[in-house]
Amino acid sequence: MLELRLVQGSLLKKVLDAIKDLVTDANFDCSSTGFSLQAMDSSHVALVALLLRSDGFEHFRCDRSVSVGMNLNNMAKMLKCASNDDIITIKSDDGGDAVTFMFESPNQDKISDFEMKLMDIDSEHLGIPEAEYHAIVKMPSSEFATICKDLSTIGDTVMISVTKEGVRFSTKGDIGSANIVCRQNTSVDKPEEATIIEMQEPVSLTFALRYLNSFTKATPLSSSVTISLSSELPVVVEYKIADMGYLRFYLAPKIEDEGDES
Amino acid sequence: MLELRLVQGSLLKKVLDAIKDLVTDANFDCSSTGFSLQAMDSSHVALVALLLRSDGFEHFRCDRSVSVGMNLNNMAKMLKCASNDDIITIKSDDGGDAVTFMFESPNQDKISDFEMKLMDIDSEHLGIPEAEYHAIVKMPSSEFATICKDLSTIGDTVMISVTKEGVRFSTKGDIGSANIVCRQNTSVDKPEEATIIEMQEPVSLTFALRYLNSFTKATPLSSSVTISLSSELPVVVEYKIADMGYLRFYLAPKIEDEGDES
Amino acid sequence: MLELRLVQGSLLKKVLDAIKDLVTDANFDCSSTGFSLQAMDSSHVALVALLLRSDGFEHFRCDRSVSVGMNLNNMAKMLKCASNDDIITIKSDDGGDAVTFMFESPNQDKISDFEMKLMDIDSEHLGIPEAEYHAIVKMPSSEFATICKDLSTIGDTVMISVTKEGVRFSTKGDIGSANIVCRQNTSVDKPEEATIIEMQEPVSLTFALRYLNSFTKATPLSSSVTISLSSELPVVVEYKIADMGYLRFYLAPKIEDEGDES
Repeated sequence: MLELRLVQGSLLKKVLDAIKDLVTDANFDCSSTGFSLQAMDSSHVALVALLLRSDGFEHFRCDRSVSVGMNLNNMAKMLKCASNDDIITIKSDDGGDAVTFMFESPNQDKISDFEMKLMDIDSEHLGIPEAEYHAIVKMPSSEFATICKDLSTIGDTVMISVTKEGVRFSTKGDIGSANIVCRQNTSVDKPEEATIIEMQEPVSLTFALRYLNSFTKATPLSSSVTISLSSELPVVVEYKIADMGYLRFYLAPKIEDEGDES
Repeated sequence: MLELRLVQGSLLKKVLDAIKDLVTDANFDCSSTGFSLQAMDSSHVALVALLLRSDGFEHFRCDRSVSVGMNLNNMAKMLKCASNDDIITIKSDDGGDAVTFMFESPNQDKISDFEMKLMDIDSEHLGIPEAEYHAIVKMPSSEFATICKDLSTIGDTVMISVTKEGVRFSTKGDIGSANIVCRQNTSVDKPEEATIIEMQEPVSLTFALRYLNSFTKATPLSSSVTISLSSELPVVVEYKIADMGYLRFYLAPKIEDEGDES
Repeated sequence: MLELRLVQGSLLKKVLDAIKDLVTDANFDCSSTGFSLQAMDSSHVALVALLLRSDGFEHFRCDRSVSVGMNLNNMAKMLKCASNDDIITIKSDDGGDAVTFMFESPNQDKISDFEMKLMDIDSEHLGIPEAEYHAIVKMPSSEFATICKDLSTIGDTVMISVTKEGVRFSTKGDIGSANIVCRQNTSVDKPEEATIIEMQEPVSLTFALRYLNSFTKATPLSSSVTISLSSELPVVVEYKIADMGYLRFYLAPKIEDEGDES
């Protein structure tokens, strides 16, 4: 028996909106720790990892660890029917072949039950080792989204270069080239507007903008984003989910002459 | 000679927006009582009935009862050119083949005249007898619109079931099923937010969501909607038009095993 | 060496949005006087003339008069990447084949450089003689835009007729006809809401709505528009650019029986 009650139901709506275009079908893993997901995108280039810790739910009952396979597009369609202030409960019987999403309006006037068939999905869980990164950039998530969108009007890839002074995003295309530099900036009114750079050594890596743009669909989840870069590792683009966990995207850098810093 | 001056011109704009996708051409009937319309939708499944009583107009001159045939899409195009705070006057000479819509801006700076050719339309006026309904549900019109839109992401038809406790909207489709229950609720801050159920006997009927979704285009006309249900009669979905009349939609239930309550 | 620094960078964004659909490639002329452009639309029917005077720039360095050819669509794409409150600097080396647009965020946290290849464009500069107009109408730019848009739902051309009482916009089409009259009105709260008519003699001219609708893309540049009409001359539709200059559109009237006032 699975019964997870999330008062801030809009968080789950935002998570689905953020990943449904990247991943078609996926297993959600539920254990006493929490509700999580790990899935490759359909072209097997990017990895998505979600964690919603059990203590962030108002009620979290998970009698035994279980994997529930869902079509994310259908799940997103159902969650779209929840209002932003609805309480969402996910329910599933052990060994059952369906999951129920229950939406309760704040004043309990309107109760909706949406039932969806579960799927059998083959998936292997990748161990993602804790790693040391050459540089970690924390910046406003909307700023990062704007930069990725702007640069993709010019080119297909972005080189992200970090120095102590700031982080540079560069691209090139048929109509010209573009460089955007964001400087470290901690003297801001609100902490989420800060741009903070922690650098062990300079790093410069190139990525496909198509994927970064897809990751930025998670922008509504958090006002800041953390980008962790290392020359031998996939970049990690992380959006914290208030007090509950995170949504992380992993993407391998492109091997290009201009992106080669070694 | 016909001359109808409506200070709240936006009402007429909203009426046309609500019915132009359902009905292509229609006769408007004008008599000393008011300005009315009765028309079947183009697939002859739903019926639209409009009444704007003469006393709701600032000036209402209708020398003799007359039917004026109009293409509702063209009429809607012209009314779209009126601002929401414009005064609208409808004018037509007896025996003439055209109608003029005059729009006056509130400060009289801008006067527009749009002239449209009339059409000859065959139509028979159906007598709609007063009926007793098993159940009458009054609910916020935006709530009803959201429910119809949400359910049509899952299925094609909706079963509406009324009991004393509330009204249940259910559907089923390829990706799963959905049930939405709205409870009777009269303890609200604003009367238009109430959900009120008057029930003689329980009733459960199935309708095509395509038509209900079309009816909900009238939502801007009124903050509440009244749904009258009886097992032997078409459902009536009514939007009151402030102090002037109503826009009503009639739709026969689908005969299905699951919809059969007798 | 060219270096033009414009604190109100959004003005340049609005200028490009206003002309990029009308003109594909164009030479910008830069001299000590200012930054200007004159170009025919791609069908050689309308003429666009832009002037941004040098004293409106925070910094204006132009060592020698120069023409820089640009693809306006690509330029608009790059300017779209500037925020509305960014400072925009246009830079180009003498004899260079590229132009750089630099965008600085107000707090200097984010600096962007967009570089675009220049083009060689043949163009002849037309001398536009100062002319006397039969009638000059100044009206709210949003009002003019609404009228052009509304009338194009009915017809393809508009006859603009000016008398002392007001200006009349008329059209005719398959579904009917429309007349919109705007009266002279100077007793308004804000001067930009006034409609002011200066008339030497009545004038009535017909224009293609397609072009007028294109001109009204300049509406965000100014809250009022000036329309100068004379029976032997192209109409001039002018949008002032705050303290810096103007964006003007010229369009020859259609020679039609009904448009012929001589």
